[in-house]
Amino acid sequence: MTKPRVAVVGLGPIGLETAKRVAVDGELQLSALVDLDPAKFDKTLAELSPGAPESPSVLADLDDIGDVDIAILCTGSHFDRIAPTLRQCLRKKAQVVSSCEEMAWPWLRHPHLADVLNVEAMQAGVAMVGTGVNPGFVMDLLPVVLSSMTTGIRHVRVTRVVDASLRRLPLQRKIGATMTQEHFRKLAGANLIGHMGMGESVTLLAQGLGRHPMRAEVITSIAPVVAEHDMACNLGPIAAGQVRGMYNTGRWQGGGIEIELELTMAVGEKNPRDEIQITADRDLHLIIPGGTFGDTATVAALVNVARVVQRAKPGMRTMLDLPPAGSR
Amino acid sequence: MTKPRVAVVGLGPIGLETAKRVAVDGELQLSALVDLDPAKFDKTLAELSPGAPESPSVLADLDDIGDVDIAILCTGSHFDRIAPTLRQCLRKKAQVVSSCEEMAWPWLRHPHLADVLNVEAMQAGVAMVGTGVNPGFVMDLLPVVLSSMTTGIRHVRVTRVVDASLRRLPLQRKIGATMTQEHFRKLAGANLIGHMGMGESVTLLAQGLGRHPMRAEVITSIAPVVAEHDMACNLGPIAAGQVRGMYNTGRWQGGGIEIELELTMAVGEKNPRDEIQITADRDLHLIIPGGTFGDTATVAALVNVARVVQRAKPGMRTMLDLPPAGSR
Repeated sequence: MTKPRVAVVGLGPIGLETAKRVAVDGELQLSALVDLDPAKFDKTLAELSPGAPESPSVLADLDDIGDVDIAILCTGSHFDRIAPTLRQCLRKKAQVVSSCEEMAWPWLRHPHLADVLNVEAMQAGVAMVGTGVNPGFVMDLLPVVLSSMTTGIRHVRVTRVVDASLRRLPLQRKIGATMTQEHFRKLAGANLIGHMGMGESVTLLAQGLGRHPMRAEVITSIAPVVAEHDMACNLGPIAAGQVRGMYNTGRWQGGGIEIELELTMAVGEKNPRDEIQITADRDLHLIIPGGTFGDTATVAALVNVARVVQRAKPGMRTMLDLPPAGSR
Repeated sequence: MTKPRVAVVGLGPIGLETAKRVAVDGELQLSALVDLDPAKFDKTLAELSPGAPESPSVLADLDDIGDVDIAILCTGSHFDRIAPTLRQCLRKKAQVVSSCEEMAWPWLRHPHLADVLNVEAMQAGVAMVGTGVNPGFVMDLLPVVLSSMTTGIRHVRVTRVVDASLRRLPLQRKIGATMTQEHFRKLAGANLIGHMGMGESVTLLAQGLGRHPMRAEVITSIAPVVAEHDMACNLGPIAAGQVRGMYNTGRWQGGGIEIELELTMAVGEKNPRDEIQITADRDLHLIIPGGTFGDTATVAALVNVARVVQRAKPGMRTMLDLPPAGSR
């Protein structure tokens, strides 16, 4: 059996790790690397990341690569902005797995574009799916899977608590660490910081429970988590009263159920974990102590889902359409 | 949209609860009840279970019911013994969801029959799948789903601990409660007591991780859990030294991974829980405190999977082929 040929598009930290993982995968073949950054052009994985396995050289344009079976996109968080790249993939008849947060449920913010790309993907005979750890797993897919063991579901609460000290600097920036509260609120108001994909998780979870929320009904919020005392962080010192992270929520109520998602990502946050509480005819409670570590899990999701995406029906798909994507 | 018509076949405790649940489901229509027991013949759900909703009357033979879209089978644990019933369903072009433990991975014990029925199901254009809480979820599907967040998986341990005091009498009998150790060992040696489906769970999990165990490589064991002091149980008193339950294991090693499943079901067992430990590039740990309650979860699995089975490709399928079956 020939291994499917995989292109990894977008070689930021996640894309780079994903490419390294594909390169050593027993069932996938790394056959192209794409990134717009001129500094990466023509370089191999080993040149970008010492010790990485052999690979093709980076090309600047997806149109220039040869035929591939699967494209893993790690290029952006906004569905409309990656649409041109998705269409390049469709022209190549490549299945698409993307870390794009909005693509976890693309109809939430871009219903028309999602419908159009759905038709285009069906015409191209390939499936496209957004995945990751969050959105894509902890707050949506996993509670749906757990819920299959219950009837009469009424309430789902998912709590994800991340100690951001253990995470990359870009994530620490994204959650507002070291900012003043005023600065945080200004950036949050302009959607320049905060978690991407909360509304998508709420919707994906609700859809998995057979409900169909409208965008206006999905309520999200963001607030700063404030340091109670001076503390250190890789970005610099955080004085008491300054921001050490963020608290994001997503809610929806309808069709007899209520969904509450709570995400805390903060430097020095205690008791990191993923936790699901389902109220139903018989309640269910699930804990992942320490929580699912974001960066490595996103890479794993992309690679593992790439193996099963070919089994999905052509079209714009979600994690609710795919069979389980075990690790290999 | 017309609701799919559902037949529930086999009205023991699980089948009866399943039928009651289908009868009130918003997306399914209970259109037939089948049971061999003459005492149940011609009775409605309400006559079999006071307070149950309206239903058709029980018929003795699946051939006698009208057209149905889905058959939920709660008739037996052995795949070969339910094969005639499966073929009755195929003649009706009904999708099949079954609590049959061996059907969680029917190729383990009956590879030829599973292949033949696979072809027959494809010809009939319907899918057949075995599901439940165990096998079907806790020790196989759930660890596969969790593993999607990891790469480089090397070891999976699943521990399920059930306090049998909280369960039905038939389960207490099945685990040997109140027996002498000698009696337990004799019955266990003759496969007359013990958990059904351990080998199937090991294989389903391994397959979900891309490995293909042979039956002879899958090692299972059973041992009594002995009371340390006199205790009460719904079946009668258990003297110190007598059996209060069982300890079942399933193991497989190959393809660079090791799988260890441990199931303890005993009267008065402490710290009931489901627990998954994955050793990989980044370890993962999951706990369901109290454990997934067996009887209600099996009913939920049957009903929730019935809603998605129509989305599976025709043939003999497993939980690894189906999209997530959320609660409704």
